[in-house]
Amino acid sequence: MDLHLDLDGPRVRAGLESALRDAISGGRLGPGTPLPSSRALAADLGIARNTVAEAYGQLVAEGWVTAVQGSGTRVAERVAAPGRGASSAETAARGARYDLRPGSPDVSAFPRAAWLRAARRALNQAPFAALDYDDPRGRPELRAALAEYLARARGVRTSVESILVCSGFAQASWLLCHVLRIAGAGTLAIEEYGLPTVHATAVACGLDVRTLPVDGDGARLESAGDAAAVLLTPAHQFPLGVPLAAGRRAQAIAWALAGGRLIIEDDYDGEFRYDRHPLGALQAHAPDHVVYAGTSSKTLAPGLRLAWLVLPPALVEPLVAAKTIADRQTGAIDQLTLAELIASGAYDRHVRRSRLVYRRRRDRLVAALAARAPKARVSGIAAGLHALVTLPPGRTEEEVIAEAAERGLALSGLAMFGAGEPRHAPALVVGYAKPPEHAFTGAVARLAAVLA
Amino acid sequence: MDLHLDLDGPRVRAGLESALRDAISGGRLGPGTPLPSSRALAADLGIARNTVAEAYGQLVAEGWVTAVQGSGTRVAERVAAPGRGASSAETAARGARYDLRPGSPDVSAFPRAAWLRAARRALNQAPFAALDYDDPRGRPELRAALAEYLARARGVRTSVESILVCSGFAQASWLLCHVLRIAGAGTLAIEEYGLPTVHATAVACGLDVRTLPVDGDGARLESAGDAAAVLLTPAHQFPLGVPLAAGRRAQAIAWALAGGRLIIEDDYDGEFRYDRHPLGALQAHAPDHVVYAGTSSKTLAPGLRLAWLVLPPALVEPLVAAKTIADRQTGAIDQLTLAELIASGAYDRHVRRSRLVYRRRRDRLVAALAARAPKARVSGIAAGLHALVTLPPGRTEEEVIAEAAERGLALSGLAMFGAGEPRHAPALVVGYAKPPEHAFTGAVARLAAVLA
Repeated sequence: MDLHLDLDGPRVRAGLESALRDAISGGRLGPGTPLPSSRALAADLGIARNTVAEAYGQLVAEGWVTAVQGSGTRVAERVAAPGRGASSAETAARGARYDLRPGSPDVSAFPRAAWLRAARRALNQAPFAALDYDDPRGRPELRAALAEYLARARGVRTSVESILVCSGFAQASWLLCHVLRIAGAGTLAIEEYGLPTVHATAVACGLDVRTLPVDGDGARLESAGDAAAVLLTPAHQFPLGVPLAAGRRAQAIAWALAGGRLIIEDDYDGEFRYDRHPLGALQAHAPDHVVYAGTSSKTLAPGLRLAWLVLPPALVEPLVAAKTIADRQTGAIDQLTLAELIASGAYDRHVRRSRLVYRRRRDRLVAALAARAPKARVSGIAAGLHALVTLPPGRTEEEVIAEAAERGLALSGLAMFGAGEPRHAPALVVGYAKPPEHAFTGAVARLAAVLA
Repeated sequence: MDLHLDLDGPRVRAGLESALRDAISGGRLGPGTPLPSSRALAADLGIARNTVAEAYGQLVAEGWVTAVQGSGTRVAERVAAPGRGASSAETAARGARYDLRPGSPDVSAFPRAAWLRAARRALNQAPFAALDYDDPRGRPELRAALAEYLARARGVRTSVESILVCSGFAQASWLLCHVLRIAGAGTLAIEEYGLPTVHATAVACGLDVRTLPVDGDGARLESAGDAAAVLLTPAHQFPLGVPLAAGRRAQAIAWALAGGRLIIEDDYDGEFRYDRHPLGALQAHAPDHVVYAGTSSKTLAPGLRLAWLVLPPALVEPLVAAKTIADRQTGAIDQLTLAELIASGAYDRHVRRSRLVYRRRRDRLVAALAARAPKARVSGIAAGLHALVTLPPGRTEEEVIAEAAERGLALSGLAMFGAGEPRHAPALVVGYAKPPEHAFTGAVARLAAVLA
């Protein structure tokens, strides 16, 4: 294929990126258009192949293009609207009355009164030092509360010294990729279905990304090979919804121990298991080789931007250095408030209440689809804030999402979470936790109608 | 000089960095020890010079070594204590009863009651969307309040669309350096005296740093040359305390316009001028070429980690992309609370109250030194939260700081803020805002005694 670009200015890579951005945002390169290979474009333009590869990497990180193993680089299906940080699909979904997209809890149930009470107690007791430049790892009150909570609720082996409070999992994953890269790591292995943002972050930090197939037992580790680290969602694979089987957990730890490699355990919804006691964290089996990552985004609200890493001792120092450069430390008042919320028991009460609500919602979703759309199939364990709903045979994700949008319901297809060639049948990732309580019944009714 | 290093492992740069860290933390390379030039070390080790230069750059960013133009690379005087994020000097200062180091306001005066009232009003009114994943630029309530406040108080030309809320100035400067670098920028010019963290951030982002001499009229722009951007503190040079003279302001803008270059205006303490109405922001004269940076760290508390950038239109999109990768968005509750504090007038009242207090403190400092240490000289305009105190002839910063420490007073010397060869006589950067009110008199008495 031929691609006409006008390069200008002395800095070729920046010029190339800018020319490609203009061509995409101006519509000359439409969604899904394949781009030439970096080798071919470099030859065409008479510039170094690395320059093209780096420009492509930057555009992947910015969301303009996607890189799919085996099928090259393409213009992204949904390019972020310039300066808004919201894709056109997101903008359309904002107008939707009902929303079953995954990723968020029911923020209308955020415990505002309990939060404000905790904030008052916390701020009135806070030492002056808490309001000044402070320990980049976070407030000792919060790290102590988290150490106790994570040991009790998730079986994590930790200490106040090894916890790093982060500004959300987005920052946590950026810090980890950045530190891996400057320690000389080349490749991060991730699950072939997962959060696209993790992929983009790894590429932006200069890491190569290798995807691991996921089957009914979770990620298949034999593909990890010589990657420096692997990011897993062992408790509840996102978005496929399976737990990592016991044999695979052992295999992951053996892989890490044998090569001095790292496992990043993304325990994004480990608090929510409905059918039985959740499996404890993988981290407890190899605390020197596993980084445990937790977040308040599913238990409280994504808008808080509070997450935490439990670090192997050798990683504390480089992560603290990266955090210091990135933003010095996370805001103190929210940290103190969350510490007070955990210490007072209000956090546990909120999690238990949410668990009951989401469990009932999942049951109602399963029952509604079984009754009114029996050809749709719900899979994954009874856990978390989302379910995988495989479409009735013959239906495509695009048509189902479009039909739902006409009925005022926003949905997400599985394809947008896939990093490789689609291996799974067309499906929806249904975030049943997201709607406020009054809208849940209407949302599920519309979903069932679309899938009937 | 000879330097013995055992390189191991396949990745030479990481191995070199790690070997140097071990040699420094183990004490084999003491504070101030000069390191070989990157050319010499590369030849010794038989590796590429770039590899050595990159390893040095990383170690500068991490605070292990310092790079001084013209005098090469040396082991830092105060290496960060591993895993603590606090230098040994900081640890020693924590034990001090009195503290006149610059950088912080009096956090004991943080308006806790007003903050909690604003938090209650803000959280009770917040739409559900504020608690969910949201606009990476920040809450519209805060951007609207800042647009009004910055126009009124600092003469900034802005709109809600062009403001990016950041997690402190540390993050703001990281985002800017990162975006400059991926846009192809090579060099950032900074003032030869300034925050060491800005220097480290630029190097960590892969930028070369060029330092501009500062005289009584502020930074000398003719040294900026072909740098892609310059970071200035026009209202009140940190730490020398002079404003950028009118001719220099015009010169800076002409430089930026002529080359399509960028000025970063760090208006860290622009709210605090005591002798007359402060000069308006430089940004108003060329909003397409100046990024205005403001912060709540001096007006309220550094622990909040709330800062803001007012961006030229062309920079909004790349900064939003960088922010999205870095931490998605800044925490919503503090943003909503600050918006309410500004909109209700409580923020202005707190700033006015602080201005009166700090103005009186500055007058008391000047009077005490004039009476009891007449050979020390206070310079800089009547503004901000710090004053430059040139030492009596014959005294050194080290001996004054050590003598003060014995009396329980923590001080900072000018040298720690210098990026080049020292051009200024030995001096202290005295942060008179920092002590709580009850400790101010004792702190100044001790300072006067040490300088007498």
